[in-house]
Amino acid sequence: MDKLGWISLLLDFYGPLLTDKQFAYMEMYYNNDLSLGEIAEEHSVSRQAVYDIIKRGEKILEEYENKLGLVKKFNKEREKLNQVAKIIAELKRNHKNDELDRALKLLAEVVEMETR
Amino acid sequence: MDKLGWISLLLDFYGPLLTDKQFAYMEMYYNNDLSLGEIAEEHSVSRQAVYDIIKRGEKILEEYENKLGLVKKFNKEREKLNQVAKIIAELKRNHKNDELDRALKLLAEVVEMETR
Repeated sequence: MDKLGWISLLLDFYGPLLTDKQFAYMEMYYNNDLSLGEIAEEHSVSRQAVYDIIKRGEKILEEYENKLGLVKKFNKEREKLNQVAKIIAELKRNHKNDELDRALKLLAEVVEMETR
Repeated sequence: MDKLGWISLLLDFYGPLLTDKQFAYMEMYYNNDLSLGEIAEEHSVSRQAVYDIIKRGEKILEEYENKLGLVKKFNKEREKLNQVAKIIAELKRNHKNDELDRALKLLAEVVEMETR
């Protein structure tokens, strides 16, 4: 997983433990793809200030993950569930079956993936 | 879910954010089924001290869950995955199929359930 995706997941899991400002800057930077300069301008602060706050936020998120490991666990489970979904999708191709449809739909609600 | 199961899950998810003492007392009380008196005796403190530390720990865990909601999300997902597992187990009964076996095995690794 690349760094963008990783930090984005950390934000999903632990974001509410950040200060409002840390969360807002990190969301703009990592999820909305704004540059440091754009965030700085929007909030009338220096680029350095934005950078420092984002780096501090990253450190806090990584510390929570180091302690709890919930994102790593989540990723491992997603991998397995994606495999299950693939198997079911493959079976569906050969055996038209309402129950397989239902299983796949439930799985898709959990793993939020493409299942067609 | 009853209170014992709920606190036990909160401990699983957020336990590492407690102090060593909070975690140890809560684990003895909720997971190892020791009484307040037994924990007090083992640590040469009063029953009241044990009680206070456990109550404080519960409060901290609930505060993390209120902010992050990860255990509630986990429970909802487990419900869906258990339904998926049931569907697959049912299909397996009618269609002997190695792929269904594999899907069920992977699911069982994620949801830690009885799948026979």
